[in-house]
Amino acid sequence: MRLSRFFLPVLKETPAEAQIVSHRLMLRAGMIRQEAAGIYAWLPLGLRVLKKIEAIVREEMNRAGAVEILMPTLQLADLWRESGRYDDYGAEMLRIKDRHERDLLYGPTNEEMVTEIFRSSVRSYKDLPKNLYHIQWKFRDEQRPRFGVMRGREFLMKDGYSFDIDEASARRSYSRMFVAYLNLYARMGLKVAPMRADTGPIGGDLSHEFIILAETGESQVFCDKTLVEMGAPGTDLDWDGDLADLVAQRTSLYAATEEMHDQARFEAEVAAENRLCARGIEVGHIFYFGDKYSRPMKAMVAGPDGTERPAQMGSYGVGVSRLVGAIIEASHDEAGIIWPDTVAPFDVGVINMRPGDAAVDAACQEAYKALTAKGLDPLLDDTAERAGAKFATMDLIGLPWQMVIGPKGVAEGVVELKRRATGERWTLPLPQALAQISG
Amino acid sequence: MRLSRFFLPVLKETPAEAQIVSHRLMLRAGMIRQEAAGIYAWLPLGLRVLKKIEAIVREEMNRAGAVEILMPTLQLADLWRESGRYDDYGAEMLRIKDRHERDLLYGPTNEEMVTEIFRSSVRSYKDLPKNLYHIQWKFRDEQRPRFGVMRGREFLMKDGYSFDIDEASARRSYSRMFVAYLNLYARMGLKVAPMRADTGPIGGDLSHEFIILAETGESQVFCDKTLVEMGAPGTDLDWDGDLADLVAQRTSLYAATEEMHDQARFEAEVAAENRLCARGIEVGHIFYFGDKYSRPMKAMVAGPDGTERPAQMGSYGVGVSRLVGAIIEASHDEAGIIWPDTVAPFDVGVINMRPGDAAVDAACQEAYKALTAKGLDPLLDDTAERAGAKFATMDLIGLPWQMVIGPKGVAEGVVELKRRATGERWTLPLPQALAQISG
Repeated sequence: MRLSRFFLPVLKETPAEAQIVSHRLMLRAGMIRQEAAGIYAWLPLGLRVLKKIEAIVREEMNRAGAVEILMPTLQLADLWRESGRYDDYGAEMLRIKDRHERDLLYGPTNEEMVTEIFRSSVRSYKDLPKNLYHIQWKFRDEQRPRFGVMRGREFLMKDGYSFDIDEASARRSYSRMFVAYLNLYARMGLKVAPMRADTGPIGGDLSHEFIILAETGESQVFCDKTLVEMGAPGTDLDWDGDLADLVAQRTSLYAATEEMHDQARFEAEVAAENRLCARGIEVGHIFYFGDKYSRPMKAMVAGPDGTERPAQMGSYGVGVSRLVGAIIEASHDEAGIIWPDTVAPFDVGVINMRPGDAAVDAACQEAYKALTAKGLDPLLDDTAERAGAKFATMDLIGLPWQMVIGPKGVAEGVVELKRRATGERWTLPLPQALAQISG
Repeated sequence: MRLSRFFLPVLKETPAEAQIVSHRLMLRAGMIRQEAAGIYAWLPLGLRVLKKIEAIVREEMNRAGAVEILMPTLQLADLWRESGRYDDYGAEMLRIKDRHERDLLYGPTNEEMVTEIFRSSVRSYKDLPKNLYHIQWKFRDEQRPRFGVMRGREFLMKDGYSFDIDEASARRSYSRMFVAYLNLYARMGLKVAPMRADTGPIGGDLSHEFIILAETGESQVFCDKTLVEMGAPGTDLDWDGDLADLVAQRTSLYAATEEMHDQARFEAEVAAENRLCARGIEVGHIFYFGDKYSRPMKAMVAGPDGTERPAQMGSYGVGVSRLVGAIIEASHDEAGIIWPDTVAPFDVGVINMRPGDAAVDAACQEAYKALTAKGLDPLLDDTAERAGAKFATMDLIGLPWQMVIGPKGVAEGVVELKRRATGERWTLPLPQALAQISG
């Protein structure tokens, strides 16, 4: 993409209304624009990151055997009356009347609807386990939306739902998602710790939050640092098998959010040198809640003995749009964003230092083509901005690599390469620069 | 994908409420499920087609120089008060009050919001032309939603918006979209005819509808059959140049919907043997409307002489979810859907005729791996259904190729291959079958 054709409305000033660094940087980098309180338009740079995150989530869900569907944003109120949540949900639910005065709502989550879809066709244990997920916009009418996409009202969530014939099988489904979640956050370059959580309004007796560590995180977390260092299990697993051991390895280590924290237990269970007190951001939440929805909504399945029983369910959420902000909280510096390679909006920013100079233009074009041929996605700054502004913008938008091409380098047959994360610089011929980028 | 792990709730009976063939087939093939009047959940098979169509639209928009953004589904009523459309729009607009009693609406289209985004950062002709598009769910509260996804209330639309400094440039933007539209429908295997149209509530003085031909189409259309046979211009074009000639070649030929039809002109302009009277379905609509929104909303741009003027705008819509139904209307038979290769949910259906038979299972696995290795996406029916039901389901869901693998063929070292569109069958060894599929 050539910057002159892109749409990158960077802001010179720091917006006063933005209280946290990810919100400030997303506004400054022209990633989003607020259209109403807690409602954002995703501009091209932001949308590219959102799509990268969405793609990683989708791949890991598919790998773990989940099947993608897409439920609508609007739902019938009657569906929520079946589960009893319509009246319980409170002011966060956006309630709507259509032209025929029918009660609709903008879905804040989809337990009811997916249960309705399930019960309409699945009758037998032979069709289980099933795990249906979707990636769709949700709405929660927060009293005070703030922190940009970290606590927006219209937000993109991956929510998945597992259906099993009994608790043992449901716990295997839960373990599969637990492991898939570790993998997907790791692929985004994040350090994540699963922490036992309250189930809140979703219900159930087993639940974990996935917390990423970021100095500017919203809440205090406490854990055994072994848990964070252990890393993700990786994708080369028997996904049909029981992954409970991988889960137990982690859940046996102390990890708690501020609300669940027990300092005495922390000190008793974790050696002093392993006690990690850090700031964290919740980026996922998984629940096993048994028949909380399937029983009142009559999602019944026949077991091997022919008797019908309510399906055992779990639900699994990833805050897709929230992750864009969370990753920035975890990865930025004074100059701007530092994207992990896997979610960067472009792989390389190529800076043309003298647009209009035939030799420099040609060298930029050559670099652009060579990068593209390697399967990389470059952003070429071909604008007439002054050099200082170009460098500042490139640092601000945080592409993993910068390649600077100017008349002097062209004369000498070299480009200047910079790694955004470390600030390392190399001056070298294009082929070697490409090799450096490809690692 | 193995069918036993997929979620494909096919219906044996034809749903009584479905009046048109695409609606019937989408329900029967387990592609969608109605969640409220005109509001559908997309089940896995339907979602795959929707995503294929979306991807083609996205590729052709990007190729033509448009830049993707993503605007939210909910909008502030105040934005529509600026253009004067809030009161004009009528009962089709879903109006919403949030918890603070602020007026919101579920966007039926995005002229106002994109104009707001544009005016917030673009000031100079140097930044033009710009074409911003998004692919997002819309809501129109139809009085009588029907015909499944063909006239739903919550629907997926690609809507794009061009911004130019003057009319000449705006007309070039219009031509680019006109040509991109011809290409994108052609890639979906559709016969399309652009027809001059009324501008309706969007406004403006130049507009074309893109109509695909289908025997079961919703409206009568009249055109010179040369127009349909001419085909799409293809993608190898100078997209920065003026594509007006390609447009003129087509717009010079007679083409009219029933509302715009003039029988006398039709007979005068078109030779008898070229007069095509057919049924059609609208799947796209493009508009040039100048400063209808930019003037009241003050989206001003400085020209080369320094004076400010309202940007010249056009808008360009493709009914993405509607296309799923429209393609079925254009391509089906008694037995079910016949997907064009480019939008099919899977490329090949592999039918295991005797699951549990080790040799047949192994042959299916070999075929599955070989297909995948060729970059094809197979659906393997590994269920215990009887053969007749498997064949019927495969015909119903309309994958381009079927590969039948049973004990007799395995013993002889062959598979049976069927082309869904023509019914042609071949019995041949796997490598030759793969070659046949790859064409």
